[in-house]
Amino acid sequence: MNRAEIRKRILAENDECADRLRSQFEDVGSLVLDLVSSPGAGKTTLLEETASRLAAELDMGAIVGDIATEMDAERLRHANLPAHQIITGGACHLDARMIEEGMKHCAFLPVDLLFVENVGNLVCPASYALGEDFKVVLLSVTEGEDKPFKYPAIFSKAKVALITKVDLMPQLSFDLERVEEQIRTLSQDVRIIRVSAWTGEGMEEWCQLLRQERMKKKLATGVH
Amino acid sequence: MNRAEIRKRILAENDECADRLRSQFEDVGSLVLDLVSSPGAGKTTLLEETASRLAAELDMGAIVGDIATEMDAERLRHANLPAHQIITGGACHLDARMIEEGMKHCAFLPVDLLFVENVGNLVCPASYALGEDFKVVLLSVTEGEDKPFKYPAIFSKAKVALITKVDLMPQLSFDLERVEEQIRTLSQDVRIIRVSAWTGEGMEEWCQLLRQERMKKKLATGVH
Repeated sequence: MNRAEIRKRILAENDECADRLRSQFEDVGSLVLDLVSSPGAGKTTLLEETASRLAAELDMGAIVGDIATEMDAERLRHANLPAHQIITGGACHLDARMIEEGMKHCAFLPVDLLFVENVGNLVCPASYALGEDFKVVLLSVTEGEDKPFKYPAIFSKAKVALITKVDLMPQLSFDLERVEEQIRTLSQDVRIIRVSAWTGEGMEEWCQLLRQERMKKKLATGVH
Repeated sequence: MNRAEIRKRILAENDECADRLRSQFEDVGSLVLDLVSSPGAGKTTLLEETASRLAAELDMGAIVGDIATEMDAERLRHANLPAHQIITGGACHLDARMIEEGMKHCAFLPVDLLFVENVGNLVCPASYALGEDFKVVLLSVTEGEDKPFKYPAIFSKAKVALITKVDLMPQLSFDLERVEEQIRTLSQDVRIIRVSAWTGEGMEEWCQLLRQERMKKKLATGVH
């Protein structure tokens, strides 16, 4: 097998496993989101803030992927979001088998809303289905406005794009309109939300989207 | 072959090719640096500013890796730094074969100082030698201070760590000392420089390091 064939086989195996996961999540009516971004775009901070806003309404949990350290899962547990850390060793992304294996250690499942916080990487996570309902891509305003066209796969696939750290806009030359135009070019039906977990800007819109998507999933699966 | 064996073979093939490149670079006395960071940490901006400061003293060029688009090479050429763009397609890192192939299209070679601007990714580029003298890792202050321990491979390997965008420090809660301590834990002889390409802070120290390293290479290889 050459490299392209190996890659194809790996992705096909992953898709099979992701299908199994998707059907498990449907059985229990869990809405599952895969959060993808560069390192440091604010995935963990977003989840901390989301957990505090939705704690009274929804059962939530998180599976967190990192090359090394338990830091993110610890931060989330500290924010009262039950979390399991997957340490990928060398791997630069989560794959479906890691989720399947990791779920055996998640005493908090099933939940209404399961967040998968992927490894900080805008490239490879785009290729791996994890049984999620949809992917959410985060782009921080500090990363520069050329990123969607430079990392088109994830921006084409994500159903929701969060522009994070918008509170820093006054200190930067970041053309929000240009970025949003790029994202819409790559994905016609993407939902873009500008957020700041620090000031709270956009957080209510994001939480409202989570409530609605959870409700849709509940109605679609018949699980209450 | 299982995945671990496949990975081992790929890396061994890469190392062979990197050794060929290293010996080519020695023949012409080029100092070669591999710049690695998250997307948006400021690699291209650093090179633009570096090119303008060292243009009168050194012949320079750049090989730039991206998943998609020629944007970065265009920016560098605009800053009078001759640049060749490698578009990796799906690959989340440059490998030595891409450099070997790319160099055939670099009419500007040989140069005193060749920058390889890797794909924006803190994970996989750490594993691939490209024939470089050393790797330089960039970490922006906007990415949060937990990154070195979360991405230990690249911070262990890099000889130079640039903390970028330090002009944004007043707007952030970023503990510089804590980050630098993590980096020094991972690599005892790393050189850490705090820079801002916008204000110019640290740029002279960085350029001075480049001059010295270039001089060392020249003396070691005997090529003037």
